[in-house]
Amino acid sequence: MTHAIGYAAHHSFSNLKPLEFERAAPAAHEIEIEVLFCGVCHSDIHQAKNEWSNTVYPCMPGHEVVGRVTHCGPGVALHAVGDVVGVGCMVDSCRACAPCIAGEQNYCEGANGFLSTYNGPMIPSSLACTGQNMYGFDNTYGGYSSVLVVREDFALKIPAALKPEVAAPILCAGVTTYSPMKHWGVKPGDKVGIIGFGGLGDMAVKIAKAMGAEVTVFTHTPEKLSEADKLGVAGVLESDKAKFTELKGHFDFMLSTIPQKHDINPYIQLLKRNCTIVIVGALEMMERVNNAQVAFSRRSVAGSLIGSIADTQEVLDFCAKHGIGPDIQIIPIEDINKAYKQVIDEDVRFRFVIDMASLKAHTTEA
Amino acid sequence: MTHAIGYAAHHSFSNLKPLEFERAAPAAHEIEIEVLFCGVCHSDIHQAKNEWSNTVYPCMPGHEVVGRVTHCGPGVALHAVGDVVGVGCMVDSCRACAPCIAGEQNYCEGANGFLSTYNGPMIPSSLACTGQNMYGFDNTYGGYSSVLVVREDFALKIPAALKPEVAAPILCAGVTTYSPMKHWGVKPGDKVGIIGFGGLGDMAVKIAKAMGAEVTVFTHTPEKLSEADKLGVAGVLESDKAKFTELKGHFDFMLSTIPQKHDINPYIQLLKRNCTIVIVGALEMMERVNNAQVAFSRRSVAGSLIGSIADTQEVLDFCAKHGIGPDIQIIPIEDINKAYKQVIDEDVRFRFVIDMASLKAHTTEA
Repeated sequence: MTHAIGYAAHHSFSNLKPLEFERAAPAAHEIEIEVLFCGVCHSDIHQAKNEWSNTVYPCMPGHEVVGRVTHCGPGVALHAVGDVVGVGCMVDSCRACAPCIAGEQNYCEGANGFLSTYNGPMIPSSLACTGQNMYGFDNTYGGYSSVLVVREDFALKIPAALKPEVAAPILCAGVTTYSPMKHWGVKPGDKVGIIGFGGLGDMAVKIAKAMGAEVTVFTHTPEKLSEADKLGVAGVLESDKAKFTELKGHFDFMLSTIPQKHDINPYIQLLKRNCTIVIVGALEMMERVNNAQVAFSRRSVAGSLIGSIADTQEVLDFCAKHGIGPDIQIIPIEDINKAYKQVIDEDVRFRFVIDMASLKAHTTEA
Repeated sequence: MTHAIGYAAHHSFSNLKPLEFERAAPAAHEIEIEVLFCGVCHSDIHQAKNEWSNTVYPCMPGHEVVGRVTHCGPGVALHAVGDVVGVGCMVDSCRACAPCIAGEQNYCEGANGFLSTYNGPMIPSSLACTGQNMYGFDNTYGGYSSVLVVREDFALKIPAALKPEVAAPILCAGVTTYSPMKHWGVKPGDKVGIIGFGGLGDMAVKIAKAMGAEVTVFTHTPEKLSEADKLGVAGVLESDKAKFTELKGHFDFMLSTIPQKHDINPYIQLLKRNCTIVIVGALEMMERVNNAQVAFSRRSVAGSLIGSIADTQEVLDFCAKHGIGPDIQIIPIEDINKAYKQVIDEDVRFRFVIDMASLKAHTTEA
């Protein structure tokens, strides 16, 4: 057992506070990681506040984790003590279903799906021993913590060209936007529209541009138009009706990164015939879609969830190769509750990353 | 000019009544057709009753038309007098946009889109001369009429193996279901779910089966389960919750033929990972979709509109080759208003087809 400390929410309405706990020693194929940095994803907030109605408390978020390997179980072959590694949204999967066998652990169809880095397996302890829980425990604690223990094949290699704090958001925001662009075949010269210009949108714009696409980003924040300029892509305000008229039938691919339900009808008509809009930000009941607009140009509305382990390694390497990464703002962990408020208020450019060195001073009396 | 008679609605609330009118003589590349049979599509009812808020009156429906060529313009090369030909939902398109050049006239992006066989170009006469109307007239009259004049390349060849009255519904119901199954690559062994078991559903089931798929048809009408039995496919009642649980993740492709908005959420979870549900029946605001169900298996919700002229010829030939066609009920045209009521009440197995010989007795005093 290793003593650990992290920040957790105890109720949907409470702030995150320090929580001391024990991590199990690494098993044969597991590694122990000293967490260096952890990104702050909007999902962390959804989960901490029980906005998906499936939170198990205490809830210790964090699934954009970069750290240094401190111990290896005896069977570990992929990593060595001292390596800088990353952990994204998953720490295990059933390894037996068709998606797992195909290497798409993010679509695991095992009884509990993939094991989330935090709040997994999303079954309260009262049901954990009924055979409905293949993972054998009732909650996982994420990367807002000093130590993480994880199966070696769910840890990614952080390329030397990426700073650890920059690599962190790539593990969720990066792969969540990279994976659908890869799956739907975004290629050089394609016209790609990114909807929403927050943590995911920032990564999506940079990745699409590095893929050779001609990128337009849609935002409702006038101040962000200059950010689009800085990235050398077109920025469009979602209220700019003239621009929407001009862009009808313009895009080969669109990606919505808005982290809550929204109206996609204005965007559907911006797609070319036979093209697809993929929603990755919102996991909920969406606003109603006009099927005439979908059918009249044989368009598709699709969803995509994070990405596989292989996709995650690929996007890390892709970002290293192309010299791209998220714009980040480093915070100490004691600012996490303030940071949550800023994320909700869209007052972040574009991703908060917690410097976990700030955690060392803490004890439970904090 | 050729004297013609047809059945038309004069208001959204009125029955269809006989209407005498003139058809222009066929131009160089046009043919004149004596209409023999015309299918009754649910769209005819939507249009006659102005349920899409775009009806130009008088409205003379009919876009599942089979007839005999009576005259050919001097430039006609594709058809000869005496040929049995079909006319579907379109009688012309802009011929200049990308979809038209690609042979997908059904997705014509010209100023007025394709020219509908009836109620085209969907612009009232007051706007017909403003340059917003490339077709030069303000309304088309469809196949509920004695005579049709049409561009030769929008007329299909009816294979000798198909009875004219059986071929008629293939021109809309057939191609509307065939085209998406072809586009999304339905292949032998695929598990295909057809939602809705009316005129389109009947054709979809038969076509999918002829493509070698393992077919399940969903209906809310218990009496139709025996129809599924007769066709050798599985029938499932939409209220059968146990069956929906059993079929989770079962289908490679699903097609919804329900002719009005409906909840597709129960069906989305029946799709395998990476698979698509296509909605062809409803052209309106749909019920809300839960994006978690879409994203968790990278599914897609798509639309499709009729099919191209090439697709239409293909499905006619496909039906002839496989010995399939719609189940039809022949009616005289004077029963059309009663038939509309029966279609709305789902009291038809599965498609009404008007025997246009019944029109000959009519004059305007009817």
